[in-house]
Amino acid sequence: MNKHTFTAGILTVSDKGAAGQREDVSGRVIEEILAGAGYLIENYSIVPDEKPEIEKALIHMADDMNLNLVVTTGGTGFSARDITPEATKSVIERETPGISEAIRMNSLAVTPKGMLSRGISGIRGFTLIVNLPGSPKAVRESLEYILSPLEHGLDILLGEASECAR
Amino acid sequence: MNKHTFTAGILTVSDKGAAGQREDVSGRVIEEILAGAGYLIENYSIVPDEKPEIEKALIHMADDMNLNLVVTTGGTGFSARDITPEATKSVIERETPGISEAIRMNSLAVTPKGMLSRGISGIRGFTLIVNLPGSPKAVRESLEYILSPLEHGLDILLGEASECAR
Amino acid sequence: MNKHTFTAGILTVSDKGAAGQREDVSGRVIEEILAGAGYLIENYSIVPDEKPEIEKALIHMADDMNLNLVVTTGGTGFSARDITPEATKSVIERETPGISEAIRMNSLAVTPKGMLSRGISGIRGFTLIVNLPGSPKAVRESLEYILSPLEHGLDILLGEASECAR
Repeated sequence: MNKHTFTAGILTVSDKGAAGQREDVSGRVIEEILAGAGYLIENYSIVPDEKPEIEKALIHMADDMNLNLVVTTGGTGFSARDITPEATKSVIERETPGISEAIRMNSLAVTPKGMLSRGISGIRGFTLIVNLPGSPKAVRESLEYILSPLEHGLDILLGEASECAR
Repeated sequence: MNKHTFTAGILTVSDKGAAGQREDVSGRVIEEILAGAGYLIENYSIVPDEKPEIEKALIHMADDMNLNLVVTTGGTGFSARDITPEATKSVIERETPGISEAIRMNSLAVTPKGMLSRGISGIRGFTLIVNLPGSPKAVRESLEYILSPLEHGLDILLGEASECAR
Repeated sequence: MNKHTFTAGILTVSDKGAAGQREDVSGRVIEEILAGAGYLIENYSIVPDEKPEIEKALIHMADDMNLNLVVTTGGTGFSARDITPEATKSVIERETPGISEAIRMNSLAVTPKGMLSRGISGIRGFTLIVNLPGSPKAVRESLEYILSPLEHGLDILLGEASECAR
């Protein structure tokens, strides 16, 4: 499926994960799915729910490492400290609302709680950043759902596909 | 269903309603549904379609009254004076796009006009603010549709549920 | 269907189209559909994928020509130069997210790539601006899908329909 090899980064946003108090199951689900689809995982970081730390990690993966795709998990819910979408919004240059709408629509077909996910997505330079929900189950459902169109989007973003401009 | 008792405010945005020229049927539908679900309705206000007045009412219910939930009706359409979403956007700190997407998706299944609702939703401090459409029928359909996940979202926001982080 | 005669403008955003290197099939599909629905097409422009040129064309059609509806095609995808939604966002005063969500939901039922369209829509003064995707096929599917509710929205915006406020 994947004609070109894309590079990817994983960012888990979790106070407990960053403190080593919780195993990062969701991050490893992302790793398993992306590696299985042929992505080269070049960064895998865990940061606490602090806006500046999330922003710094995203900017590093985009600007310094030039990763094609960065997938986050965690921090998209209603908890007082959940701030991943706001951090993501502040670093992206062009929003890709359809990806996040599709993720929620897909979740909503499983559970009404799917409407509570606040994730966003967008492009910074040549890096696509996508917020996934926090739970391993929702991560798997969401990432598998968007994987194929994501690859097409990356092909377009990197100029490796002729315009199809749907 | 409602383990905790949440407090709620209702804000009807309507020039005619504020001038006493129209009965506020939609606001009373909200009151009936929220009270029936166990919410304590601690504020019920009607303001005209003026951005500063809407903002002031929302800030009062969030910051001064610390209400858990504020539901608005009216001012989300295409009329020249409809400005509720813009007023709401200016006072929320963290947007909850999935709630408004779900409301519209649910409306769209009833009528194509559902796509015209411009409502948004989001969190200010520990208060969730949700814009509903203006008509009593759409208010009922929308609020009943989101009621159960809303309670879960409020539990998370108020720290009364363990993270489920979907 | 169309009780009132609305005026419309078409803006094709395409580097190749603006350079005369590609036939503007999508723009003509919009023209055919809108004219068939009774709209008076008063402007049809092609600009390159340059934010200032897109903004200038939209502002001209809204503020100088007072068109009721402006439909764009092109520049909503993942290409490095795709910038139509950002240009649109900078000129609209009130976003109409439901129209763009509905377009994507409708596309998504045809192809998963529908989630890649980044189009937005909104109101400037008394002009509704809607970004459509770039391909003729997606333009047709999208415009036919939203045509009927759009007319209702314009009736409300122009004060020619009584409030129905759904």
